[in-house]
Amino acid sequence: MERTPRKLLEECLERIAARESVVKAFVRLDLAGARASADAATRRLKAGKPLSPIDGCPLAVKDIIATADMPTEMNSPIYKGWRPKADAACVIALRRAGAVIVGKTVTTEFAIGRSGPTTNPCDARRTPGGSSTGSAAAVASGMVLAGLGTQTVGSIIRPASYCGVVGFKPTIGALPTGGIHLLSATFDHLGVIAASVEDAWRVASQVSIGLGNPGVGFLAGAGTSLPAARRPRRLWLLRTRGWKEIDADTRAAFNRAVASLAARGVEMVAPRDAPALADLEAQLERGIDGANDILAYDMRWPYGDYVARYGRLVGPRVRELVTRGVEIDVSEYEALTDERRRMQRVAATALAQCDGLVTLSSSGPAPIGLANTGSRTFASYASWLGLPAFSLPLLTVRGLPVGLQLVGRAGRDAAVCGVARWLTSNLDGST
Amino acid sequence: MERTPRKLLEECLERIAARESVVKAFVRLDLAGARASADAATRRLKAGKPLSPIDGCPLAVKDIIATADMPTEMNSPIYKGWRPKADAACVIALRRAGAVIVGKTVTTEFAIGRSGPTTNPCDARRTPGGSSTGSAAAVASGMVLAGLGTQTVGSIIRPASYCGVVGFKPTIGALPTGGIHLLSATFDHLGVIAASVEDAWRVASQVSIGLGNPGVGFLAGAGTSLPAARRPRRLWLLRTRGWKEIDADTRAAFNRAVASLAARGVEMVAPRDAPALADLEAQLERGIDGANDILAYDMRWPYGDYVARYGRLVGPRVRELVTRGVEIDVSEYEALTDERRRMQRVAATALAQCDGLVTLSSSGPAPIGLANTGSRTFASYASWLGLPAFSLPLLTVRGLPVGLQLVGRAGRDAAVCGVARWLTSNLDGST
Repeated sequence: MERTPRKLLEECLERIAARESVVKAFVRLDLAGARASADAATRRLKAGKPLSPIDGCPLAVKDIIATADMPTEMNSPIYKGWRPKADAACVIALRRAGAVIVGKTVTTEFAIGRSGPTTNPCDARRTPGGSSTGSAAAVASGMVLAGLGTQTVGSIIRPASYCGVVGFKPTIGALPTGGIHLLSATFDHLGVIAASVEDAWRVASQVSIGLGNPGVGFLAGAGTSLPAARRPRRLWLLRTRGWKEIDADTRAAFNRAVASLAARGVEMVAPRDAPALADLEAQLERGIDGANDILAYDMRWPYGDYVARYGRLVGPRVRELVTRGVEIDVSEYEALTDERRRMQRVAATALAQCDGLVTLSSSGPAPIGLANTGSRTFASYASWLGLPAFSLPLLTVRGLPVGLQLVGRAGRDAAVCGVARWLTSNLDGST
Repeated sequence: MERTPRKLLEECLERIAARESVVKAFVRLDLAGARASADAATRRLKAGKPLSPIDGCPLAVKDIIATADMPTEMNSPIYKGWRPKADAACVIALRRAGAVIVGKTVTTEFAIGRSGPTTNPCDARRTPGGSSTGSAAAVASGMVLAGLGTQTVGSIIRPASYCGVVGFKPTIGALPTGGIHLLSATFDHLGVIAASVEDAWRVASQVSIGLGNPGVGFLAGAGTSLPAARRPRRLWLLRTRGWKEIDADTRAAFNRAVASLAARGVEMVAPRDAPALADLEAQLERGIDGANDILAYDMRWPYGDYVARYGRLVGPRVRELVTRGVEIDVSEYEALTDERRRMQRVAATALAQCDGLVTLSSSGPAPIGLANTGSRTFASYASWLGLPAFSLPLLTVRGLPVGLQLVGRAGRDAAVCGVARWLTSNLDGST
């Protein structure tokens, strides 16, 4: 490492000083704490005794993730100034790995409602996406190397796409959600937004191995070594209904990436070439609307109580979902979750026939305006099925970033990471 | 109903006034709130429009279960005066069903550590058991008809046994744990302590159907009608290592109950009569020690952080478990949880051959002293495997109550309830 952790942190803090007044990625900074952590890491590294591959790495934490020494406010007035009694499991794991936690980043309200003040670092008129808004913007601005995010529908993949950084949403359950404010018991994923695939994997690995994830699972392949870059033999092109949302420039950028991969010898399979892929896509389209109903049902608690207690302190989108959730009865919910499990099996079978699904991470570049965080369509499928997904900043549309999304097989996160590394080193800058 | 809910509540409040100074079941009472709820229920019942079979029923809530309008303190100085932002899912469900929540009851620290000041209503020198200490004592004193409790190892079945009331720990996951302070992600059960099997079932039913339990499950058979009392054809006698802990009087009381059931035509099968039962018992003994290690591992979060942050504000038992948890590595944990799943399948096969396992709920009557809440051995097996269990107040040992424990098949809670009803009406007072 050419720079000490303290030097690296000071460079990040300079970027924060220069850009934060416009980007507004952070809810709160802990400069003194970060400097003390960076100095401790510097001493460990000089002694040749790093705690982990991310010892001394400046990171940010989305503000729906509990930190005992900083308020955790969920971008909700209900939680103004709220102090949890313990750090979230993921935060403890990061601290044990020596990470330097610079601050808490803006989230949309409870990771699904009202958006925050953050602007897109590529163009301040545009949304950075949500709900892991601040983590994506902070990474894209060079304020930190990585940030913790969460995804229930599109909250990591979409902001990573709009901000031109890497988003990694592992298999559902692979990373511990203890201490993260519940949105949906069946959909919430913890993940990472980072400047590179490697950093995203290193951070996720440390989160996974730090404390374990009692009763749920682990990130497959987590550890101190990186999964080797792996050239995919065959990728399936997944279009979905998101395809109707995109414009000609976005389609062209995606098609250039596909052509470029084909030129490098990857078999790029379209639905017309593979009945199994066409069938998968058809089944995904039939089922995806159910995902939103599962989410609405899951939100009965605690959001029903928040609405009852705090009324309009709860934003309109959350209130709308609570209203919807009440209309869904138990048998309907069970049918939807049965269908979800069935589709997970269908996806596992499909994904055994290729090295991943390739699609867009968002339906184009970030839209103008800060209130609307953009369409979640492209990100929603992997969330619904709990499949590991990367958003890779490999496309450029009218000078703005758009992510290429790689979706893999549940529990095979390391293999997906290997393909993501290969795609990044083979496509970067070419599309 | 001969009494109005308000009249019923006032009778409960009289018992509280008469006995609470000695019993000390409650951390906090909400008399005004309870009276208002009881009056509302009285109006509904007079109008012939009850919300549920427990509309107007005075209930208590263990103080590790979140209530937004009363502090929730976990019997820990860390949570002194802590106010959650929402009611737990189970509390919301009870309120929707019209239940009258009288107050919060004493728990051991985080449902596993230091015990509280509560005394056993049968003998104030004795422990009421834990961790659902106050709920059991309040029910036994007639202060409420039922109380919510939780069980991770023995925390419902044991205090129900010591206090001479009914304890019901449903199948793991059958009742929602949202808003209950986490002890173990893989062992925590929500359940009910009540004056009768019927009340326990009615309360559990309303908790289950009130909000649902997203992504986890439901109480099988929950609803407004009670499972019919059902005469068991064959019961298996489970002794376990707990048998070595008991004295001659307890053994005699248990044996009298067994003889009494046999006299009523129930086939009572001992291990010597059934190799499959002997084998089940042997396998249970081989595996049960692993349960404690799973628990210790699960407690890494948030208890590791509590110990790091608050030191000796955390009691010795919790600190000891955290220390143990750190020593267990991931592969050991995975082997223990694999073994647990295997034993769940073994238990399902065994329980298909009988109408339930019968054993003691505790290794005798409540011991003298308040610091030690007694042995959890007899209750630990059903917790480990997540099986539904009732403690039925059917035995008397030296004038003190001891519970007969009935354990059934996972997901067959209504069937177990039916057998519990039959046992209660056929054994009550006879042993």
